[in-house]
Amino acid sequence: MAAHQRKHPESKLISLGIGDTSEPIPEVIARAMEQRAHGLSTLKGYTGYGSEQGPKELREGLVKAFYSDLGIDKDEIFISDGAKCDVIRLQLLFGPDVTMAAQDPSYPAYVDTSVLVGQTQGYYPDTQQYGKIVYMKCLPENNFFPDLSKMPRTDTIFFCSPNNPTGATATRKQLEELVAFAKKNGSIIIYDSAYAIYMSDDHPKSIYEIPGAREVAIETSSFSKVAGFTGVRLGWTVVPAELRFQDGSPVIKDFNRVLCTTFNGASNISQAGGLACVSSEGLEAIHKMVGFYKENTRILKETFDSLGFETYGGQNAPYVWIRFPGSQSSWNIFDEILEKADIVTTPGRGFGPGGEGFIRASAFAHREDIIEATQRLKSLYGGKSN
Amino acid sequence: MAAHQRKHPESKLISLGIGDTSEPIPEVIARAMEQRAHGLSTLKGYTGYGSEQGPKELREGLVKAFYSDLGIDKDEIFISDGAKCDVIRLQLLFGPDVTMAAQDPSYPAYVDTSVLVGQTQGYYPDTQQYGKIVYMKCLPENNFFPDLSKMPRTDTIFFCSPNNPTGATATRKQLEELVAFAKKNGSIIIYDSAYAIYMSDDHPKSIYEIPGAREVAIETSSFSKVAGFTGVRLGWTVVPAELRFQDGSPVIKDFNRVLCTTFNGASNISQAGGLACVSSEGLEAIHKMVGFYKENTRILKETFDSLGFETYGGQNAPYVWIRFPGSQSSWNIFDEILEKADIVTTPGRGFGPGGEGFIRASAFAHREDIIEATQRLKSLYGGKSN
Repeated sequence: MAAHQRKHPESKLISLGIGDTSEPIPEVIARAMEQRAHGLSTLKGYTGYGSEQGPKELREGLVKAFYSDLGIDKDEIFISDGAKCDVIRLQLLFGPDVTMAAQDPSYPAYVDTSVLVGQTQGYYPDTQQYGKIVYMKCLPENNFFPDLSKMPRTDTIFFCSPNNPTGATATRKQLEELVAFAKKNGSIIIYDSAYAIYMSDDHPKSIYEIPGAREVAIETSSFSKVAGFTGVRLGWTVVPAELRFQDGSPVIKDFNRVLCTTFNGASNISQAGGLACVSSEGLEAIHKMVGFYKENTRILKETFDSLGFETYGGQNAPYVWIRFPGSQSSWNIFDEILEKADIVTTPGRGFGPGGEGFIRASAFAHREDIIEATQRLKSLYGGKSN
Repeated sequence: MAAHQRKHPESKLISLGIGDTSEPIPEVIARAMEQRAHGLSTLKGYTGYGSEQGPKELREGLVKAFYSDLGIDKDEIFISDGAKCDVIRLQLLFGPDVTMAAQDPSYPAYVDTSVLVGQTQGYYPDTQQYGKIVYMKCLPENNFFPDLSKMPRTDTIFFCSPNNPTGATATRKQLEELVAFAKKNGSIIIYDSAYAIYMSDDHPKSIYEIPGAREVAIETSSFSKVAGFTGVRLGWTVVPAELRFQDGSPVIKDFNRVLCTTFNGASNISQAGGLACVSSEGLEAIHKMVGFYKENTRILKETFDSLGFETYGGQNAPYVWIRFPGSQSSWNIFDEILEKADIVTTPGRGFGPGGEGFIRASAFAHREDIIEATQRLKSLYGGKSN
């Protein structure tokens, strides 16, 4: 991108690339952080170390906002500085001697952290896969859900729904299958629900909507895409009390130990923002912002559709997943759109071998940039028959 | 402590326990965080993901404030959410197959994270030590510095100066020895300088004051005790370009990869606070606050001295390290002081087997609590001849 900008200094680059939020944080939430920051300069408002797990009020607020009637207790919620950081802490919890499965394509952190803690064995350039990881192909051809009857057992199963990058969402029936599969095999599901708030369909927003999930699933989520906290850093992970390792020991106890050994809690100012997010005023503001991004997504998807592309996602996630005709490499498509339309997208290949031939367009952008991007895309591809 | 409070609800507990800052954050610094938080609610001030390594301005500011004339480049500084989090990222960088040395006693995170990533082998209850870790005894008897001529080679050497908990500081000559020892053995020093700002003596505040250190040492530090950021969360780690693994590959490249795989940057609001800390106004405010805690330390040390105890530290660190006569266990001493004076300290044993017989008293407290604590200590121990 930097090289492109040097070559074309006159062009305005529009980013539909990394999923980076663009709209200001709602005032009611920012104000809570301002007040907390100010409080830290007063005797009454100053606090030092908080608990590593986060303040009780925020954990209670999350239960009320996102897990009401799902039987989650505040003590099963661990506040963090974001889902990526929780993913590595979960991998540290599992250690190097486990086998894992991940959707292909998916958010790269699952596989990258697995490699980092030593769970994998070798890398196979032919398939572009790491040894010991089970890649669950999630393509249009299988409706973005793996055939579990053909899937080998693994110790952990990373599953993101709504999925980044495809935007695909598992149905209740599919998640019931997944939970039953995990239960049968003694596997632990790590369910990433970071985009749940973007769901329009009536699919589950939390794995805990599925009976029995408390015995097999951890859920990780984040305020990043919920409230524009990509830079503020705040997330959470749910570890139910019933979840046990094969030796019968509770996972929550070990996760707590890993957390306390490697982390000193999320910033108290960010936590104050989180608390404002889960207030009724905050939730209203958040849903308005999410609605704005969803409209962006609709515009983008409609544009690609009108140009004759095969598109996926966009209904339950802030991403449109676009398949390009022929057997073009996703990097070539990326380059073409960058060179000819000054638009940054994300090549599907970056999310795993299953992303080849696709690009992801992110709806996190100002409306005028989305509109301008659609016009450029129409100029670029409008003449072609795709 | 909770049990104690239930038994004695009338007593005011004074904490000289965990090193948790007590004084409000200087206004000039809190204001910068307020403004940043407010900015996030505006189109102009909003930002999402920053670079994982932190903003250029803050890295430049750290160079200017703490590494001027030491040859550290801004690109060798990685901003983080605190030293504990950087310690686990460093352990992930080194992996399970290295041997490590740590001071005994020292900040528990070094050994705990080593255990977590699988560097250790077994635990020996007799010596209360983990297998494969080299414990560098740092006691009054060796002037808190290990005899390097008798020390086996290890891949990494964690070294904290001024030390938590002993308050001992390595001299220039000792650090020259340590750097030469690491160079001879191909070891990497992880130098924790979180308390450097408390230094009164003319000892080095950074390992990079020692010639050749750039080839053997990583330095990790934090705003926690510098600016009262224990709850705000901000720190940094320096990895010099010259530092290489034994295969010749640059450590900085791999650390950057670990950081980007496991972390999404410190909170942008905390970073705004950090930037204010390294401004001239901020540094002035910080030094005033540090001076306040240093006076607390002086009062505490003088009290224990006047009561006839053997005390260490307190000159270059916000901690007084007190040896109790006889062979009392540090937990018994802790219990006695809690039961009879309603003061929380930290039992030395918590910092490793070498802490047995000692307690650590932290100077992070309001002045009136420090004064009150000294009066209670005088009542408790004034009659005894120690």
